[in-house]
Amino acid sequence: MPENKIYAVGLGPGSKDLMAPKALEILRSCNVIAGYKYYLEQFPDLFAGKTIISSGMTGEIQRCREALEAARSGKRVAVISSGDAGIYGMAGLLMELAEKDFPEIEVETVPGITAASAVGALLGAPLMNDFATISLSDLMTPEKVIIKRLEGVAEADLVCVLYNPASKKRRTLIRTAVDIYRRAVGEETVAGIVTDACRPDQQVMTCTLKDFPFDEIGMKTLVVLGNSRTVLRNGKMYTLRGYDDKYGI
Amino acid sequence: MPENKIYAVGLGPGSKDLMAPKALEILRSCNVIAGYKYYLEQFPDLFAGKTIISSGMTGEIQRCREALEAARSGKRVAVISSGDAGIYGMAGLLMELAEKDFPEIEVETVPGITAASAVGALLGAPLMNDFATISLSDLMTPEKVIIKRLEGVAEADLVCVLYNPASKKRRTLIRTAVDIYRRAVGEETVAGIVTDACRPDQQVMTCTLKDFPFDEIGMKTLVVLGNSRTVLRNGKMYTLRGYDDKYGI
Repeated sequence: MPENKIYAVGLGPGSKDLMAPKALEILRSCNVIAGYKYYLEQFPDLFAGKTIISSGMTGEIQRCREALEAARSGKRVAVISSGDAGIYGMAGLLMELAEKDFPEIEVETVPGITAASAVGALLGAPLMNDFATISLSDLMTPEKVIIKRLEGVAEADLVCVLYNPASKKRRTLIRTAVDIYRRAVGEETVAGIVTDACRPDQQVMTCTLKDFPFDEIGMKTLVVLGNSRTVLRNGKMYTLRGYDDKYGI
Repeated sequence: MPENKIYAVGLGPGSKDLMAPKALEILRSCNVIAGYKYYLEQFPDLFAGKTIISSGMTGEIQRCREALEAARSGKRVAVISSGDAGIYGMAGLLMELAEKDFPEIEVETVPGITAASAVGALLGAPLMNDFATISLSDLMTPEKVIIKRLEGVAEADLVCVLYNPASKKRRTLIRTAVDIYRRAVGEETVAGIVTDACRPDQQVMTCTLKDFPFDEIGMKTLVVLGNSRTVLRNGKMYTLRGYDDKYGI
């Protein structure tokens, strides 16, 4: 039976007014905070005076181990992720490490607003009906698995949110993803592109797949590929659920 | 150019400590609130003294029209949804109605923590990698489209969150969904079942697809079907991202 807890906390998309009160309360109550530098810098007041376990983007295993060690020594520890800690965040890695080497520590996930929700709201309401989220990072998922997933969701006519669509070096998989959607759903399909969502440099764009602006896609971009029911009207991108077909609104 | 605004506000999964401060602030500032009765009753303090436009589950078109009329008359109006207003919520319907009959009113989506995030956190971290959300409600999406989507995501080995998995009358599609996953991913695949998430009667269960408890599934249940990388260890359901394969943690 675990004796200690460690918290995997989702900060939400970036602005404090979208962070859940529960996350804020737990962060305030912790004396040790572990996280990627960039996320820590977003909320300097919140983390002032606390012990910080920080490192760059790829240091997450070491960071989570150090956080678990701190929890073992009796400290109250939170490991932060942007968005939701349970969606491409640190919750799973903490559970995996705890199960192997820290069985006395329970990992509690504190959910947050995931980037897909924030970006959906900025664009309009593209996630009104069934959708998938797929990360294009091939760091831990083989490219052929990612492509198979893209083909599956495109064939199923699901709206698709692409996390980590490209980095400076990795620029081809986003082209593959858009091509798959062009073929399966059509060139006129609406797409949304949001960079730095809910942050000072926020950029929101919409386009069709025919005119997809590949050069605008970076590390901090999220892409939403629409489906056959996604429209762009009055400046809003949204997906029709079928009210008009059924009730003739 | 729209002159007025109406807010589509996500309340989060049900407890006040998971509602975004922005949602709370907007609800406080509005004098008219429209929503499904059950959601209004969850936060009685918040809505006291306001004009309420309420109706049952299927009255949403009428409710949204009345809300838009109120906004047109100069009132400050919020239409509430549980979870995220942009994920199976009211944001899209409001945009559709505004585009047709209320072009002077802009719909702003205020995001919230969607049920998938809340349920994922209660189970562990099943949404750590790519996933899909599919609603099994056939009220507006034809059953054959839903089945095609289920087959697509199962073949692509995506974790799948089922919204509206069953009602009193609609009991067969959940069997079809589980059967599709049994065939594509295997009988030993882990599943999570959460009813009344973040509410007083909350129930959290895990099982394998072989032993899926169909009788436990109701209107207020969310089901998470794992993929080939989803495990149940130390009482937590989570999906491996591949750290162990790549780094041998």
